[in-house]
Amino acid sequence: MHSLHFTSETSSNGVVERDFVLGEVPGVLWSPTAGPAHAPLVLMGHGGGLHKKTPALKARALDTVTTWGYTVVALDAPGHGDRPRTAEDEQARAALGQARAAGDNALFESVSLRYVTSLAERAVPEWQTTLDALQALPGIGTAAPIGYGGGISMGTAIGVPLTAVDPRITAAVFGGGFFVSEALLEAAGRITVPVQFLLPWDDEHVDRHSALALFDAFASTEKTLHANPGDHRIIRWVGVDKEFLARHLGPASS
Amino acid sequence: MHSLHFTSETSSNGVVERDFVLGEVPGVLWSPTAGPAHAPLVLMGHGGGLHKKTPALKARALDTVTTWGYTVVALDAPGHGDRPRTAEDEQARAALGQARAAGDNALFESVSLRYVTSLAERAVPEWQTTLDALQALPGIGTAAPIGYGGGISMGTAIGVPLTAVDPRITAAVFGGGFFVSEALLEAAGRITVPVQFLLPWDDEHVDRHSALALFDAFASTEKTLHANPGDHRIIRWVGVDKEFLARHLGPASS
Repeated sequence: MHSLHFTSETSSNGVVERDFVLGEVPGVLWSPTAGPAHAPLVLMGHGGGLHKKTPALKARALDTVTTWGYTVVALDAPGHGDRPRTAEDEQARAALGQARAAGDNALFESVSLRYVTSLAERAVPEWQTTLDALQALPGIGTAAPIGYGGGISMGTAIGVPLTAVDPRITAAVFGGGFFVSEALLEAAGRITVPVQFLLPWDDEHVDRHSALALFDAFASTEKTLHANPGDHRIIRWVGVDKEFLARHLGPASS
Repeated sequence: MHSLHFTSETSSNGVVERDFVLGEVPGVLWSPTAGPAHAPLVLMGHGGGLHKKTPALKARALDTVTTWGYTVVALDAPGHGDRPRTAEDEQARAALGQARAAGDNALFESVSLRYVTSLAERAVPEWQTTLDALQALPGIGTAAPIGYGGGISMGTAIGVPLTAVDPRITAAVFGGGFFVSEALLEAAGRITVPVQFLLPWDDEHVDRHSALALFDAFASTEKTLHANPGDHRIIRWVGVDKEFLARHLGPASS
């Protein structure tokens, strides 16, 4: 097993940001500068084409640390951020760009489905190895409750199969904004933990019914869908339950 | 114009409950025992077959009064509660019972659509007359902001056409759980005020897609859909934005 190496540490406004590498996977850990051990841990995924410190993700992470005293971890997805792309990744990205430029929605969907499925297959074991390594840290340990904190789009395409296979995740925030595969619907059917689901009502590329089918597929007895107008890139969330993770993961002090 | 006559007044736990009649329409007004004049006014509608003080409605009303200091008004819908039923009402209710007993969903839907449309046509002018009369009371006046506070089902079938025609209503809570007519979709398209929409995800009788179409139809730039599993009669709402009306109607003290 690779162990986790911290490569840099900065601190501001009560939050410590520590970059790390685990094998070939770069990640970042945000935590309170002062706080109890074993605080809940929230995993955050970034959207397609973005990276672990993309502004919207980092803003949510800092808010989670300062509001709840939680620790947040994010990874660069395969072929994203500081990571090299495989030939398959390069081909997929070129094909996505061409399909979009040509306005060929069917091609865009089929390429996107294949690419995101491949990314998720690679990302899930990386997340599990990261959890193993984080649980070996004394400040986190195996006592810290773990939640998947989103986001929507590719963060959900990776988070759903991860949550389906890893029982350490006890609550999850998912969302729409991407093409949903049959395999993803099957994985959702194996998820029973509480789910909060964020649906951009007017996605530019993705029919909302695929996201509604994904919400429908979760086997969770507690699941809540929130929808607001807008495409997933520009949506302004209004009225979303901000206490969802805190309610399920509990206080940092316990 | 009929004027509003209060017929009884009781008070407990900081809330005054005043029954009234306005012409032939019985209603109830809940307000804080002590509070500023011109507090926001919330209109609440009950579900089909129920009445103005049905427990779930009354619980929401008392919560609205004690949490926000607002005034809440509810009316018995035509043919409901203390009101006589027309021959048409009796026929419709008998036909609904027969269709349900026979498991004839198509008949149940067509009878329900016709009956609820008729109820809404009668109820909308009653609500407008009630608003006129309430605004003539010194404690309410024309300065009190007005919101439609739900609920789902028949409360929405009446609330949507009311909100579409009455500009005094500046925010509205609606929801699913009933059959949506084409006329209702058209009325929704004339609504531009902020809307919160509550969708029971697994309604026993009603396909969720009709409720999704209703949410889609609102012309409001701010609209939020919340969905939870369950039929509208048994649903447990989780993660719903409880501050929606307060955010739009403002504090009772202003």
